[in-house]
Amino acid sequence: MLRHSVSPDPGRPQDEIRRLNLGNLLRLVHLGGPLSRSDLGRRMALNRSTILALTADLTAAGLVDEQRPPPAAPPGAAGRAGRPSLVVRPASSRVYVLAFDVAVDRLVAARVALGGEILERRDAVRSRAGADLDTVVGVLAGFGRDLYATADPRSVCVGVAASYCGMIRPADGMVRFGPDMGWVDQAFGTELGKELGLGLPVVVGNEAHLGAVAEHVRGAGTGFENLIYLHGDVGVGGGIVVGGTLLDGEAGYGCELGHMVVNPYDGRPCGCGSRGCLEAEVGERALLDAAGRPPGLIGRAALRDVVADGRRGDPAARAALRRIGDWLGIGVANLINLFNPGVVVFGGMLRDVYPGAAAQVRARIANNVLAVSRDVRLRVSALGDDATLMGAAELGFAGLLADPLGVLARQAG
Amino acid sequence: MLRHSVSPDPGRPQDEIRRLNLGNLLRLVHLGGPLSRSDLGRRMALNRSTILALTADLTAAGLVDEQRPPPAAPPGAAGRAGRPSLVVRPASSRVYVLAFDVAVDRLVAARVALGGEILERRDAVRSRAGADLDTVVGVLAGFGRDLYATADPRSVCVGVAASYCGMIRPADGMVRFGPDMGWVDQAFGTELGKELGLGLPVVVGNEAHLGAVAEHVRGAGTGFENLIYLHGDVGVGGGIVVGGTLLDGEAGYGCELGHMVVNPYDGRPCGCGSRGCLEAEVGERALLDAAGRPPGLIGRAALRDVVADGRRGDPAARAALRRIGDWLGIGVANLINLFNPGVVVFGGMLRDVYPGAAAQVRARIANNVLAVSRDVRLRVSALGDDATLMGAAELGFAGLLADPLGVLARQAG
Repeated sequence: MLRHSVSPDPGRPQDEIRRLNLGNLLRLVHLGGPLSRSDLGRRMALNRSTILALTADLTAAGLVDEQRPPPAAPPGAAGRAGRPSLVVRPASSRVYVLAFDVAVDRLVAARVALGGEILERRDAVRSRAGADLDTVVGVLAGFGRDLYATADPRSVCVGVAASYCGMIRPADGMVRFGPDMGWVDQAFGTELGKELGLGLPVVVGNEAHLGAVAEHVRGAGTGFENLIYLHGDVGVGGGIVVGGTLLDGEAGYGCELGHMVVNPYDGRPCGCGSRGCLEAEVGERALLDAAGRPPGLIGRAALRDVVADGRRGDPAARAALRRIGDWLGIGVANLINLFNPGVVVFGGMLRDVYPGAAAQVRARIANNVLAVSRDVRLRVSALGDDATLMGAAELGFAGLLADPLGVLARQAG
Repeated sequence: MLRHSVSPDPGRPQDEIRRLNLGNLLRLVHLGGPLSRSDLGRRMALNRSTILALTADLTAAGLVDEQRPPPAAPPGAAGRAGRPSLVVRPASSRVYVLAFDVAVDRLVAARVALGGEILERRDAVRSRAGADLDTVVGVLAGFGRDLYATADPRSVCVGVAASYCGMIRPADGMVRFGPDMGWVDQAFGTELGKELGLGLPVVVGNEAHLGAVAEHVRGAGTGFENLIYLHGDVGVGGGIVVGGTLLDGEAGYGCELGHMVVNPYDGRPCGCGSRGCLEAEVGERALLDAAGRPPGLIGRAALRDVVADGRRGDPAARAALRRIGDWLGIGVANLINLFNPGVVVFGGMLRDVYPGAAAQVRARIANNVLAVSRDVRLRVSALGDDATLMGAAELGFAGLLADPLGVLARQAG
């Protein structure tokens, strides 16, 4: 999804190469912002005339424009370097996707511009109580139609994608299992597409997979081709980038690090039916229980209370964070031995929890990780609660970046 | 290594496409055996004239030849289909690699033909007692020079590669850590290359990585793009194929599934300094201890004794196999949740152990693996003790398959 792993189709080299080049150029400015033609030439190992031709095609299609950059140097120095060269910019005011996020505690919809800026958004708090497919789709489709209607009529929606807090069948956006709402085999992507009525398919991804994608391309994981993203909410999901590509496995269900058994003896029961899974030992309930919070207390606020108490030196809260940190550390150390990643990113509620648990995680890494793999960064999510939404936006842009002119011709036509 | 993950270099599309196509065609017949031009065209999505041109180039270089296939149908039926079309075959009698295997209990060298046949081999038993670099290199280089000298003088050696039972720095074949011989930072690849004196670099890989490669392309894992290979000897190594490519991680040290902590409470001490690692719980010593064998007894024969006793119904041996199977099952279930593989392959000594431990492994999978990922085959290695050697041979051929004419010009010239 992140980097085309498409082999060149040797039967049609010309078309294929042009399509790949157009996509790669567009991806560079979409993810990296404005770049001069000479920078693009260097980054893509292409000569001047090829860059010129590609830029002309993308400009004609309205996907990029070229502008003089704003003067960076003080006015007095500006004359020296002569006229600054043009920079190629993504057409952020014209090209956008609709991105949706179904998280355990909220529903979000946004219009996200080519280039990654969130132009406009709608948020709804949702209770942890189960909601049926119609309700969720109804709220999101209302948001989506509203965002679509208020967009500049000259702009073009090039994709629609959603992040969902559960297991997704990649082919059609079917929710195979949504633990928090008790969904089994619900046709979420298909229904949302119908209800939106924009004539666009809705691509759906697992929230932790998409959080990993977003942190990889725009967040705490940029610059690393091997990344582990742990997403905490009620449970713990994962997204793992291997050699620049999201690990999906044989049917798209890989990355389930939350169901790694770390505690085989007296493990806490897990929603999956097993015991001692990482998510059972470090999820929200585990932390609240360890801190002696009453069983009725749930949610992010309660969890942040424990974190705040810990920061103030409250012994019970600190002990709870250490306990969670120790299990988290065993899980993370196992993952580092398996994946030799450049960076591990803690997102969702783990963004709050990690700082109070970091010492235990580091101790487990020092103890359990082979020396050759210990050179790894541990970071909290840079995109925070928007990581999953931004990942959905990237999923929405994937089609455009794979075939810029083809997708635009279909959508604008 | 298996499939070029090379992006097409858009600056030189013609050269690049030709090189990729030549490599892909050669790989198809190297791995799949003789194929007709029309089969090649179908498999590569290339037209007749392109296949003709590619085949002509490879034939001229002496890398393939074309022959009428032996009649498959009974003589009476032969006339009906007319003249059978030519098949393109790898030039197995002319093109070979030297492959080496440093395993815990043996040193092996072989001449392996393009197409994968072992043409000639030398084996030495080695004791578990530490051996220094000079000794190991001396034995292997002697074997290698001998195999080179006895080869047909018209044949050409296109690569040299070795499998080593330890952690390898990919760049130069340095053994970062060889637990059984106590090697730390030994320049194995460089020294073996010098001692061979053939003017060829020696590429080195970890034995479990190479076992995974071999099982993937020629063994129990063919047809699956996502495979987990567990290699048991004294410890337990791993090789994991993700989307058709061996997982290497940021510096080439991924796949260390043997150091996944599965038993965090009363785990057995592990050679890595930690406790409760998968290899500590299911390695050779764990099984021999569980079966009540005396501490002095080691090695494959001792282990096969326990397996044979178990098969005869000996209660202690059966309990030991069940115990190992339970830990193995926890580890394998964790890996399946993480990787959603199509197949898990048990190699090395686990090939002997797995059948007696399979019930426990299956029970753990049923209990711990998410339903969406339970559709996975469990198989023992098809290549047996030659998996690592065959993986080294594939590593030796990798350069040729990436640039057939370039490598051949250098080696034959």
